[in-house]
Amino acid sequence: MQELTRITLNPPYLLLLGAETDNTYAKTALGLVQWSPEKVLGQLRFEGCQVDLGVPDLSLDEAVAAGCGSLVLGVAPVGGVVPDSWWPLLEQAARAGLDIVSGLHLRLGERAGLAAAAADSGARLVDVRVPPARLPVGTGKPRSGRRILTVAADCAIGKKYTALALQRALSDAGFDASFRATGQTGIMIAGEGVPIDSVVADFISGAAELLSPANDPAHWDVIEGQGSVFHPGYSGVALGLLHGAQPHGFVVCHDPLRTHVAGWPHYALPSLGECIDAHLRLGRRTSPNIRCVGVSVNTSKLPADERRNTLDGLAEETGLPCVDPLLDGCEALVRRIQDEFTDA
Amino acid sequence: MQELTRITLNPPYLLLLGAETDNTYAKTALGLVQWSPEKVLGQLRFEGCQVDLGVPDLSLDEAVAAGCGSLVLGVAPVGGVVPDSWWPLLEQAARAGLDIVSGLHLRLGERAGLAAAAADSGARLVDVRVPPARLPVGTGKPRSGRRILTVAADCAIGKKYTALALQRALSDAGFDASFRATGQTGIMIAGEGVPIDSVVADFISGAAELLSPANDPAHWDVIEGQGSVFHPGYSGVALGLLHGAQPHGFVVCHDPLRTHVAGWPHYALPSLGECIDAHLRLGRRTSPNIRCVGVSVNTSKLPADERRNTLDGLAEETGLPCVDPLLDGCEALVRRIQDEFTDA
Repeated sequence: MQELTRITLNPPYLLLLGAETDNTYAKTALGLVQWSPEKVLGQLRFEGCQVDLGVPDLSLDEAVAAGCGSLVLGVAPVGGVVPDSWWPLLEQAARAGLDIVSGLHLRLGERAGLAAAAADSGARLVDVRVPPARLPVGTGKPRSGRRILTVAADCAIGKKYTALALQRALSDAGFDASFRATGQTGIMIAGEGVPIDSVVADFISGAAELLSPANDPAHWDVIEGQGSVFHPGYSGVALGLLHGAQPHGFVVCHDPLRTHVAGWPHYALPSLGECIDAHLRLGRRTSPNIRCVGVSVNTSKLPADERRNTLDGLAEETGLPCVDPLLDGCEALVRRIQDEFTDA
Repeated sequence: MQELTRITLNPPYLLLLGAETDNTYAKTALGLVQWSPEKVLGQLRFEGCQVDLGVPDLSLDEAVAAGCGSLVLGVAPVGGVVPDSWWPLLEQAARAGLDIVSGLHLRLGERAGLAAAAADSGARLVDVRVPPARLPVGTGKPRSGRRILTVAADCAIGKKYTALALQRALSDAGFDASFRATGQTGIMIAGEGVPIDSVVADFISGAAELLSPANDPAHWDVIEGQGSVFHPGYSGVALGLLHGAQPHGFVVCHDPLRTHVAGWPHYALPSLGECIDAHLRLGRRTSPNIRCVGVSVNTSKLPADERRNTLDGLAEETGLPCVDPLLDGCEALVRRIQDEFTDA
């Protein structure tokens, strides 16, 4: 068995949001505030930034004075390129002794000025997205333990959130359950994981197998999905993860108001039914009895009086429990999992 | 536009086969002998090797004496790990001034002894599989030019061969056509390409777009497929390539005697019809009018008197031209492409 990537971060964090205007790309910062609020000191926003985490706005100096441990890059631009305007700030932070924590593809240490600043102060440059050095090729062999994967028709639609909420609900219901992180924020929250979208393409499903290894037959892994098999940029990641995870069940994450791939306006999203069918058809390749165990719906942008009707309508359409974890919790998904897997 | 990986190799080659017992894993060496025989000096085989390329068996000393330019790693073990027994030979060859050419995931230069030997002699360590440093995320946007992708239900089943043969047949029929290489051998033959299975997972479809850029409307790219959407280890590569290639048409490569995934005996292969349907369904996401233009059948292991019947049976079953490029050439595929794309 290979060793998992294990990250140990220095809280509390100052979350850098730059001039980001779209919450869609602030998954990292939003996730940390939601799931590890005790570790978040504040946010650092540039002029024009329209994302607000609801935590104190701090300058770098204020954060240092308040005992900040790490400056965390809190937004993920398409392609993972750091805007030029960030570099002076990152160097200044490293020079002040803050660890710099990044979930982007680039390696912080390859930026000479930043590497020198960190070396001078003893700060660490932590690339959460760097995968283990040696990964296996996926074997597709059956393994013990139970697994649930969160999937969707698009990115940034609740796969991490749903996995975290479902893991918590399973634990609350008395199950032995682990959250398995596949992305930068999840790894920051969980403290370990495999950054599935940054592994070499040949090893995607092998990394997914490594992430969710054979376990006690009664144990549940709740695996954070990445990308989408419908996504023109990231479908390869999603299919490799689906095949490697060998999930017994999956939860579809759904946004009833999203009509097109976020950031890819020329790509319409499939219907919820098409999304479920596609995952059943593709997932059967390595998990012959794969089932959809429910739908996690983000109703936050709906008028309050439409939320319940929307959930009821989707439940009727799919014959599955459809919940907004924020409104309802994930107990209905847990019950469905109990019903579907009677030996669980 | 990013720069493509361009490789310039020093012929003639000595092809290292090690102790390989299965032609399936000798794609690189077999492809070079088939498509660039003028560059091949001989083969170097260890005791127990059961692969024979039909070229002279040479020791390292004999090859050096005959003017060899490069020692080429001619087999691709699962996982891409070089057997321990090879390293002394590689160092000896580098010390003798031969370039070492590898299509495996590992970086030759990371092996200290080998790097030192190459530095001493001036030999180059050429990793054909190292992708361009910066790749784009796939956009999925329509682009001009025509594209054909070779696909299959499994690896090592003729996707490179078929693409090379079809490109040649299209050129012979007067079309402007390019072979687009996605794997180590193809890149060695073409002298350029993008090693699609070694790119970071997030960039698979972007790399495929880079590989087959917008072109003259009448130009045909014939793109070498990799992996398979049905493969438990490599499905992510195949789906990202399918989506990024945005092929107008695809050719399915088929081995009528292969019942299971090669090297994954617990995975049965889908039927030819299922394979075609899956690629139509998945491919429509980025290429709405995608069509299957034919089947390339490897009949080499069938009794000679069954080959024609097998091809005729498959043609009746699918309603498509089914050819063995070795027996029939690819003219029937070219005619189908002409018929399907009447403006071509």
